Amino acid sequence: MRFATIATPTGSTAALQLENGDFLPIAAASKAQGLTDRALTEGSLQALIEGGDAALAQVKSLAAKADPALIIAAQKAKLLAPLPRPEKNVFCVGRNYADHIAEGARAQKTTVAITEVPVFFTKPRTAVIGPGTDVPIFTHVSTQIDYEVELALIFGKPGRDIPKARVYDHIWGYTILNDITARDVQRRHGGQYFKGKGLDGSCPLGPIVVTADEIADPQNLGLRSLVNGEVRQNSNTAQMIFDIPTLVASLSEGLTLEPGDILATGTPSGVGYAMEPPAFLKDGDEVVCEIDGIGRLANPVRNA
Amino acid sequence: MRFATIATPTGSTAALQLENGDFLPIAAASKAQGLTDRALTEGSLQALIEGGDAALAQVKSLAAKADPALIIAAQKAKLLAPLPRPEKNVFCVGRNYADHIAEGARAQKTTVAITEVPVFFTKPRTAVIGPGTDVPIFTHVSTQIDYEVELALIFGKPGRDIPKARVYDHIWGYTILNDITARDVQRRHGGQYFKGKGLDGSCPLGPIVVTADEIADPQNLGLRSLVNGEVRQNSNTAQMIFDIPTLVASLSEGLTLEPGDILATGTPSGVGYAMEPPAFLKDGDEVVCEIDGIGRLANPVRNA
Repeated sequence: MRFATIATPTGSTAALQLENGDFLPIAAASKAQGLTDRALTEGSLQALIEGGDAALAQVKSLAAKADPALIIAAQKAKLLAPLPRPEKNVFCVGRNYADHIAEGARAQKTTVAITEVPVFFTKPRTAVIGPGTDVPIFTHVSTQIDYEVELALIFGKPGRDIPKARVYDHIWGYTILNDITARDVQRRHGGQYFKGKGLDGSCPLGPIVVTADEIADPQNLGLRSLVNGEVRQNSNTAQMIFDIPTLVASLSEGLTLEPGDILATGTPSGVGYAMEPPAFLKDGDEVVCEIDGIGRLANPVRNA
Repeated sequence: MRFATIATPTGSTAALQLENGDFLPIAAASKAQGLTDRALTEGSLQALIEGGDAALAQVKSLAAKADPALIIAAQKAKLLAPLPRPEKNVFCVGRNYADHIAEGARAQKTTVAITEVPVFFTKPRTAVIGPGTDVPIFTHVSTQIDYEVELALIFGKPGRDIPKARVYDHIWGYTILNDITARDVQRRHGGQYFKGKGLDGSCPLGPIVVTADEIADPQNLGLRSLVNGEVRQNSNTAQMIFDIPTLVASLSEGLTLEPGDILATGTPSGVGYAMEPPAFLKDGDEVVCEIDGIGRLANPVRNA
């Protein structure tokens, strides 16, 4: 199934995307059919995820007998980030595609080692924005705003010390994440990634979450980014250094993952700062991230 | 005023600490006096913080006419972390006391530069524990668990690009934070602090939050840590490299701080890994953090 979160006059509601692209709001459809499970009636993707397989099964039956009057046409739906205010920071991975490490080393005229284990950092929920929302360039803070297309995992089942062989049992779905990075800020703050990757609006997310059962092989998905229509990154999740089971097993060592947690899995080569000359995002640009089988995440860029 | 969060049979409740050390549960006292403001009746410190000065004023009048039957004796109160599940990761600062930087450089036989701006990272809410709760040593993950006493700020008013001169307007209160760190994990994961500082139970917090009006000079507070009664760290917040206004102004550049956000302000020298020989925490230890005017945070350490 494919899910999104849609703006409403009073806030937002989780919705199922139908085969023709239109959306069925889950809370409204549940109430119309007399269901009372909070996982559905609350109308948030977070509640639905916490509801597990039972909630997903109910959504499936909802859709089969949905009142057509409740359906929102695709063109009329204002899509938000699927989890507009995640309950904790988004987990992220640095340096997970060899070609991206190589371009970074070239750009910085240094060597960057491939670590033996993944490198993790986070982005705060204040960074999360949906499609169509401006990626702000705070010109007093950074002049080097860059894009990074990434496959993001959304966890369903909680777990700590998740063995590699069980990792896929914990993944609820997949979405697109643009790990917007202020390169100059990242360097300035002692090399710790958080501040340069944590600015407001620096985490475009979504809009569609595809449930895990519909992605046959998450380790073989084409992904690309485009700036003003020009392809900048163009790779495949097969190129990850640490594959998804390795990333999740490593992250969860001694650290509990919870339903609704998000993990971005790293970015391939083609980022702006490694181009010659460097090409950072600028006022008026449009940045697009695409992942095959999931969709397209487009954001305008504006000075702020 | 001094606040804590206390365990109840059904969860937890925010409480005001009275002059004799006993606690008045805010939700129960509010309801008994017919108050309906969610900031008080919800019974969480998060809601109280979001209620701002108006909510604090109501708490003051609550206390004046509280029913003695509602009061919980200090010895009977099971204290939790004041914010048991913070709504986003805890913001933290690395390398903010010169003597701690020097001991780190010595221990690693290298030089560690003082950065021109603060170094930020985060700890997830799954790390947060209250007093008396075990700091777990996941022996399959780390054999180098270390303590770090820190003054933590709790924000009240939201803000971005907060000028230094306005920083104290945004601080709601102060508490104690033990930035438990797995030194070996920190090194292993490419030098990014998150994983080594993000393990479950690695963020003892509280138990008391003192409102900002009661701390005359947060930049002149003695702070210390003890392991099994032996003083290990013993310093003063006057020794910070970046003072509180600088830290908050820097963190909030292009990044919105929200009510209930927590910022730990760094640790002085005396940590275990810099001792000769290094002395990490071990099963059966008790680690205590103290800050003058705020209180004492004690946790047992257990293999897990």
